[in-house]
Amino acid sequence: MYRSHSCGELNATHINTEVTLAGWVQKSRDKGFMIWIDLRDRYGITQLIFDEERTPAAITAKAKTLGREFVIQVKGTVIERASKNPNMETGDIEILVQELTVLNEALVPPFTIEDNTDGGEDIRMKYRYLDIRRTPVKNNLLFRHQVSMQVRNFLSNENFIEVETPYLIKSTPEGARDFVVPSRMNSGEFYALPQSPQTFKQLLMVGGMDKYFQIVKCFRDEDLRADRQPEFTQIDCEMAFVEQEDILAVFEGLTRHLLQEIKGITIGDFPRMTYADAMRLYGNDKPDIRFGMQFGELNAVAQHKEFKVFNDAELVVGIAVPDGASYTRKEIDKLVDWVKRPQVGALGMVYVKCNADGTFKSSVDKFYDQEDLAKWATATGAKAGDLICVLSGATTKVRAQLSALRMELAERLGLRNPEEFAPLWVVDFPLLEWDEDTERYHAMHHPFTSPKPEDMALLETDPGTVRANAYDLVLNGNEIGGGSIRIHDKETQALMFDYLGFTPEEAKAQFGFLMDAFQYGAPPHGGLAFGLDRLVAILGGQETIRDFIAFPKNNSGRDVMIDAPSAIDTTQLKELGIQLDQ
Amino acid sequence: MYRSHSCGELNATHINTEVTLAGWVQKSRDKGFMIWIDLRDRYGITQLIFDEERTPAAITAKAKTLGREFVIQVKGTVIERASKNPNMETGDIEILVQELTVLNEALVPPFTIEDNTDGGEDIRMKYRYLDIRRTPVKNNLLFRHQVSMQVRNFLSNENFIEVETPYLIKSTPEGARDFVVPSRMNSGEFYALPQSPQTFKQLLMVGGMDKYFQIVKCFRDEDLRADRQPEFTQIDCEMAFVEQEDILAVFEGLTRHLLQEIKGITIGDFPRMTYADAMRLYGNDKPDIRFGMQFGELNAVAQHKEFKVFNDAELVVGIAVPDGASYTRKEIDKLVDWVKRPQVGALGMVYVKCNADGTFKSSVDKFYDQEDLAKWATATGAKAGDLICVLSGATTKVRAQLSALRMELAERLGLRNPEEFAPLWVVDFPLLEWDEDTERYHAMHHPFTSPKPEDMALLETDPGTVRANAYDLVLNGNEIGGGSIRIHDKETQALMFDYLGFTPEEAKAQFGFLMDAFQYGAPPHGGLAFGLDRLVAILGGQETIRDFIAFPKNNSGRDVMIDAPSAIDTTQLKELGIQLDQ
Repeated sequence: MYRSHSCGELNATHINTEVTLAGWVQKSRDKGFMIWIDLRDRYGITQLIFDEERTPAAITAKAKTLGREFVIQVKGTVIERASKNPNMETGDIEILVQELTVLNEALVPPFTIEDNTDGGEDIRMKYRYLDIRRTPVKNNLLFRHQVSMQVRNFLSNENFIEVETPYLIKSTPEGARDFVVPSRMNSGEFYALPQSPQTFKQLLMVGGMDKYFQIVKCFRDEDLRADRQPEFTQIDCEMAFVEQEDILAVFEGLTRHLLQEIKGITIGDFPRMTYADAMRLYGNDKPDIRFGMQFGELNAVAQHKEFKVFNDAELVVGIAVPDGASYTRKEIDKLVDWVKRPQVGALGMVYVKCNADGTFKSSVDKFYDQEDLAKWATATGAKAGDLICVLSGATTKVRAQLSALRMELAERLGLRNPEEFAPLWVVDFPLLEWDEDTERYHAMHHPFTSPKPEDMALLETDPGTVRANAYDLVLNGNEIGGGSIRIHDKETQALMFDYLGFTPEEAKAQFGFLMDAFQYGAPPHGGLAFGLDRLVAILGGQETIRDFIAFPKNNSGRDVMIDAPSAIDTTQLKELGIQLDQ
Repeated sequence: MYRSHSCGELNATHINTEVTLAGWVQKSRDKGFMIWIDLRDRYGITQLIFDEERTPAAITAKAKTLGREFVIQVKGTVIERASKNPNMETGDIEILVQELTVLNEALVPPFTIEDNTDGGEDIRMKYRYLDIRRTPVKNNLLFRHQVSMQVRNFLSNENFIEVETPYLIKSTPEGARDFVVPSRMNSGEFYALPQSPQTFKQLLMVGGMDKYFQIVKCFRDEDLRADRQPEFTQIDCEMAFVEQEDILAVFEGLTRHLLQEIKGITIGDFPRMTYADAMRLYGNDKPDIRFGMQFGELNAVAQHKEFKVFNDAELVVGIAVPDGASYTRKEIDKLVDWVKRPQVGALGMVYVKCNADGTFKSSVDKFYDQEDLAKWATATGAKAGDLICVLSGATTKVRAQLSALRMELAERLGLRNPEEFAPLWVVDFPLLEWDEDTERYHAMHHPFTSPKPEDMALLETDPGTVRANAYDLVLNGNEIGGGSIRIHDKETQALMFDYLGFTPEEAKAQFGFLMDAFQYGAPPHGGLAFGLDRLVAILGGQETIRDFIAFPKNNSGRDVMIDAPSAIDTTQLKELGIQLDQ
């Protein structure tokens, strides 16, 4: 062992102890007759002192040659510091060094190894091994480990079994694009990397496993939006002989446990909201309920007047911005510009100032009188001093636009406190969603989701209104998990594939094994998957997953540190029986 | 919830309780006026009773229609059994059924769902979801989960951090063949699936992480020998600021902990043996030391006589088979045939019977007198009543042959008790091994293994004799883990790549990131990886890993259940910029 103690553990109780430490030179201060070095390892920083009188001259001379990030080993005595640092765990002591060994030299790092580094994203990723030395990144990885351990121990104590499912599976065109792996032993054929262990966990239920979980890597070959990764980690779960309520209870329990153990926050029963209500009140299926600003629908009170824009709109909807009546004309114009940006896409915004004296001043005073505007205030819950922002248009679009505005305003108003946690179950998701491109229904969740029995008849007449036994767990405006009760009989599954446009042959070729399995005694079952990367980031009070992943990829799916992907040998291609397009 | 209790928990204390159970029909006995059904779930079996007098007639009628593996739910009352079964947890009670719901029907399964099934390997793999219902397979998966949890909690308590390393990495021609993944976003380029997270864990050490572990899937595209899988699971570990001794101490502790917690077996310090001794005494670098039969080298006492075969041999070596002197001529002939099989490849076998009266009778009495043979007995440790089996030839080959014979005889003699555990560290592995095919040295472990400092000079003069700081943990004749102290400076690493035949350009292209990292303050480090599949199998008292993997692949790398790998769409190929060879 190169050390007797870590750099984070020595304190006044160790004074006069002989110790050996090893670590990295964080910084050094050379006063000529005396040198101080901050020695860093994973556990903390300990100050070393070399001085003319008490340290051998050759050692002090060597200490003067040490650069930042050199790896050294020192032997010395723990002594009391002349000037203590109460902000450091080890701030009461320092090490009077007697021996110094340079274990490895270091070039000057391309960015500073400090909490607030001078390195940009690109350079930090290229030298990720140096970035990980920085306390914030290191702590994120330690935090992730903690969360994973808590999840595993909680579920294991609840009798869940972690079962490893295969990574080399079968490609299925449904859903996102698969990463594929050419098979050398089965020339011309390919494995796929799993987008999730969905069918395997269902087969484990058919196999009687009853309570399964796995913390598992999943893969999607999608064009990467900001903060998406081609490989990501799921907490994947499935249970048999349960109903939706049982699944929600377990995973609400898990989330509550994490908030308690990791954050010290006690939260009672999680509120629930139907998908329909979430869309109506927040324009969003993952509403952030840490703050209000619920939507107020204004069709009844704003249409059938002279204002053609509203009269022509499918939906007129507004939110009340707390204390927004004080915004200047210029500030409001900026808000209007904001909603008109292409990323949001509104054509304009109507506003109403709710004055302190109970009167209203709006951008559409020409069309609406005080009585009309008072009704808007009631519908949006606006109080004196608030600003009502109103958008109109096609329902789906205008909801998305107003939701974006709501989140932006909340951000500006400081209502999105990362240390406050507001979980919410969104339930009763639609089974199907209409896809404009392909002009057919797609499974909103996936093709294995069970319709609500009472809505089954609607499949024939009005498929878009059929609700599923599907649910999402939302935390602070982020979907951290989702799941459903599954279909467990061959007939319903075949029917579902049919609705989704599979021919019976396609269904059999891709999912025949699952439908076969359903014929041999499949129990009722359902489950859920949490996105671990995002869960950890949110619990860590952040929303960027990249800093909670040890070696993330960039937006082109590249690992810039190891320079992957890369070209491979022609012999390798030949063995695989493939060639590159010219 | 479909049940109030599991099928494994009801006993006499529950008599008169109303319960709801759900599970699979294991078997049913119909006596006309009375039907018994064994209901099975993951937790056990509970007997249901339907009778003419106490069960509604319609329910009993329905019970008569239930087939094997139907999934049912029943409500009823726990009653005392007329004839108790002391061999069952639930053997004191049965459920008098009042309500019966068929949750799902089942076709007759293609093999019996019993401990000793009538299903062969192929059919069990095709219907693996049914195979998993069988208690032995189910218990193996539960056992694997238990071991994994113990490993994680042990290492986490020792301050190890589980860090997830990427699965989409860079292909490197060194070592085994990679599975590769074409990149759509980076056309013409490929990711590789990791053969192990070796370089990433070393980068974590450079990053200061100091104690890393991960239970992680690894991939090798090799022609599959028996009981190898293209994807397998490792317990992967690395530590910084440590020497070999520290690493052995931690993982000896882990193994001891597993044996204690999982098997209830207390084992003291693990013995150690050098690679050279293991080869000399057992002809094998993973000796099974549960039994003796150590090799006795006979060159000194068997050469320089009239027997040309021995005189011409590089090595003459024998083992003493306990009580083997009683073997008949026919039995010995069979042994000779066994060693001459092409899988073993010996040209013949010399034997010596050590008679009870202290005399010897050998197959080479023409050349050796009693005094000679007494020396053989001394060298092999043979006692009166034993049989000495002697092989000769080129050292490497003859050791492998005699090792095979030793293992075979131990198996036949019942000396390989699966409930006895004999761990052994094999240390001081050679750094390099000569490869006949390519006529150059290959890294025996991998190119990152550190030579022993005291052997460095030999690299120039006699590379084959250089020892590495490399070690294996052997359990009952199986290598369950191995590791090494790594090189941590750029110069030595570059030198090593040079010895292994890399040009500087190749080394830079493939491992430049690692050598770069070594320039920025790399600490001394080392680690080890355990093969989880094999570890679990051996702890479970078995040697076949396949039954400890939920969904294994066959010897052609196929998953016969889902039928993977399979053909993919031409559009998929086109998007990836590749085409199949004609």
